Amino acid sequence: MDAISVIRAKRDRAELTDDQIDWVIDAYTRGEVADEQMSSLAMAILLNGMNRKEIARWTAAMINSGERMDFSSLTRPTADKHSTGGVGDKITLPLAPLVAACGAAVPQLSGRGLGHTGGTLDKLEAIPGWRAQLSNAEMLDVLGSVGSVVCAAGAGLAPADKKLYALRDVTGTVESIPLIASSIMSKKIAEGTGSLVLDVKVGSGAFMKNLDDARELAATMVELGTDHGVRTTALLTNMATPLGLTAGNALEVRESVEVLAGGGPADVVELTLALAREMLDAAGLGDADPAKVLADGSAMDHWRRMIQAQGGDPDAPLPVAREQHVVNAAASGVLTTLDAYAVGLAAWRLGAGRARKEDPVQPGAGIELHAKPGDEIQAGQPLLTLHTDTPEKFASAIEALDGGVLIAPPGTPFTPAPIILDRIA
Amino acid sequence: MDAISVIRAKRDRAELTDDQIDWVIDAYTRGEVADEQMSSLAMAILLNGMNRKEIARWTAAMINSGERMDFSSLTRPTADKHSTGGVGDKITLPLAPLVAACGAAVPQLSGRGLGHTGGTLDKLEAIPGWRAQLSNAEMLDVLGSVGSVVCAAGAGLAPADKKLYALRDVTGTVESIPLIASSIMSKKIAEGTGSLVLDVKVGSGAFMKNLDDARELAATMVELGTDHGVRTTALLTNMATPLGLTAGNALEVRESVEVLAGGGPADVVELTLALAREMLDAAGLGDADPAKVLADGSAMDHWRRMIQAQGGDPDAPLPVAREQHVVNAAASGVLTTLDAYAVGLAAWRLGAGRARKEDPVQPGAGIELHAKPGDEIQAGQPLLTLHTDTPEKFASAIEALDGGVLIAPPGTPFTPAPIILDRIA
Repeated sequence: MDAISVIRAKRDRAELTDDQIDWVIDAYTRGEVADEQMSSLAMAILLNGMNRKEIARWTAAMINSGERMDFSSLTRPTADKHSTGGVGDKITLPLAPLVAACGAAVPQLSGRGLGHTGGTLDKLEAIPGWRAQLSNAEMLDVLGSVGSVVCAAGAGLAPADKKLYALRDVTGTVESIPLIASSIMSKKIAEGTGSLVLDVKVGSGAFMKNLDDARELAATMVELGTDHGVRTTALLTNMATPLGLTAGNALEVRESVEVLAGGGPADVVELTLALAREMLDAAGLGDADPAKVLADGSAMDHWRRMIQAQGGDPDAPLPVAREQHVVNAAASGVLTTLDAYAVGLAAWRLGAGRARKEDPVQPGAGIELHAKPGDEIQAGQPLLTLHTDTPEKFASAIEALDGGVLIAPPGTPFTPAPIILDRIA
Repeated sequence: MDAISVIRAKRDRAELTDDQIDWVIDAYTRGEVADEQMSSLAMAILLNGMNRKEIARWTAAMINSGERMDFSSLTRPTADKHSTGGVGDKITLPLAPLVAACGAAVPQLSGRGLGHTGGTLDKLEAIPGWRAQLSNAEMLDVLGSVGSVVCAAGAGLAPADKKLYALRDVTGTVESIPLIASSIMSKKIAEGTGSLVLDVKVGSGAFMKNLDDARELAATMVELGTDHGVRTTALLTNMATPLGLTAGNALEVRESVEVLAGGGPADVVELTLALAREMLDAAGLGDADPAKVLADGSAMDHWRRMIQAQGGDPDAPLPVAREQHVVNAAASGVLTTLDAYAVGLAAWRLGAGRARKEDPVQPGAGIELHAKPGDEIQAGQPLLTLHTDTPEKFASAIEALDGGVLIAPPGTPFTPAPIILDRIA
């Protein structure tokens, strides 16, 4: 077996054999297959595809490249959620303590942001003292005592995926449904959760720009999870406009705490509750009432304990960016578009995200929205507030917003799209 | 400008802009674009193609990555030949001194073999004392005094191509017409020859398996050469069966000397003379008569002087492999197939070629053919003699020949295909 014959097979549209897949993933993890060989193979996969059988084997090989976690010591059923990433997607923050408060154990291994979508760990790191790196033993300890934990995945979990993901990121080979599905599911299956709900984002601010691609990705992942004994369902949700009224690390923590306190934007509350119900159903806790648990303050109690268990101070003031700039409406009318990609790119340029994985992020940077699609707007009213420590970035952030904010004449009929577009099980 | 945006453009079937091509070739040569990014781009080019405009710019960028040689001090017109590589293709050896003896200057920058096709430098290195590495000044000196020189290209010539070729070789991205054409032509144009004849091989032993692909490659290269002021023509020639009666380094030198002495196999003589006439026409020396120059011994004189000028002893005995194994005909009849790829692969396994570019080759290893397609065969007569210093390789060489030798019942009508299949100018 050698790398070139595997690359040639996929290049020439053959189905990769089990042996070829097992060998190439193992040899790549060990360094015997070089980065330049794997990136060439990844491009061939992106352009020529993999069928379900190949994707299943590829995923299994990535799981087998590392350790598997064991949650069998927990008395509560495990339930996990994964989002394919969007702008203003802070849902994990209120969701994890809410579902824990309903009786499940929620092991949220999360990532950092790259590009225009933020990362859950970056958001939580805006909280003074909070740390993302836990040993497996610490993670199990927080999970057992609090019921939910949000932390970085250990190096031992699907190392082939870690290496391949970093490679795809710099070689233009991210946007492949087989590679995205196997990357997400290898980590989640190796993590050992009993059930999983996938939040597959669709729209300008997401990887998947249209419903058909999103359905294919969701169906692929649901099948992979089910085949490995993980009860898996997926919601397809709208990412044409940002979730909630904030995009940025500390800004999103503040909004998440508002939701846990019983307030917050309607779309964030709606999606948090919908995902909570999916997770609880999949975990066999369908009798729990997450709306009640959110209203009665017990989700907030769990949040505070979860933050404290990882060194964070839930009462500490959150970081605020040094400079603000308000963008006002140019005309009166109905806001029809507030483009998720434009807002995400602008927030990234303001310092909320990073260009390279070793870059720092600005905890206070980002964007506040003062209106959402469907709202009536008066010319001159504030639409957005931009936050940054580096005011020289205002101009390029405003440039990113160009064409992303559309106002139709007053009285134009307009119905915003629903948050939840479809469900795959 | 960044590598990922260039990769994405080609991945998504866009035409690369001049700026994108110039930047990516320059940045790759400088090491700013990483190998894993270039291999991903190469796979995208292989699968999605490049149009003539892109290929022209890509070639120009590779030429501009290094120095250009200057033959303006020579009093004779320059004429070069390039073969896309085949089994038993020793044509450069008799051709270069023959064309020099007819009055042209022949600067043959050549390569080593990789895989089942041999390399001209490997063949000449079978001659005791001969060395392939010359400085530019030494090369010009031999070219001026002898009229022909065969040597390794200096490191300064199209360094982008050197780096990219080595990368393509290990990443399954060799078989792309745009990349093959730009690789060959960037070196030849940077070399500075005034005219060029391309020998584009077609058949099982060649990169191009069918005439249509070979025509496209030839037409692409002829256009590139012409655009850069190099008078360029191409012959499409048959590589379904090996050229001549030998495949292997010293074995092919011996056969080349036979041709220079007025003998040798008919197909080698025919192709040598046809290419010589093309080169002389392109160089403005159409009145010369290469058949006469071959017959009167002046080509042989030039050969001896060319070998001596690079330290070789034309009278020294050639290396002979330690072990021989004769393969006899299994049946009587007409030999219809002696497959070039099978013979090339067998010769490679016997030690005539190398798996990695740092491997040595065995000068004496290879295969002698005792019959050619169209010949009447008697059961039990010798068909092939295998030569190697490593007799443990006989079994795998014989395995490579399996299915590559076909004998039809006695009297079966069979006309061997012609050597020269087409001409592109």
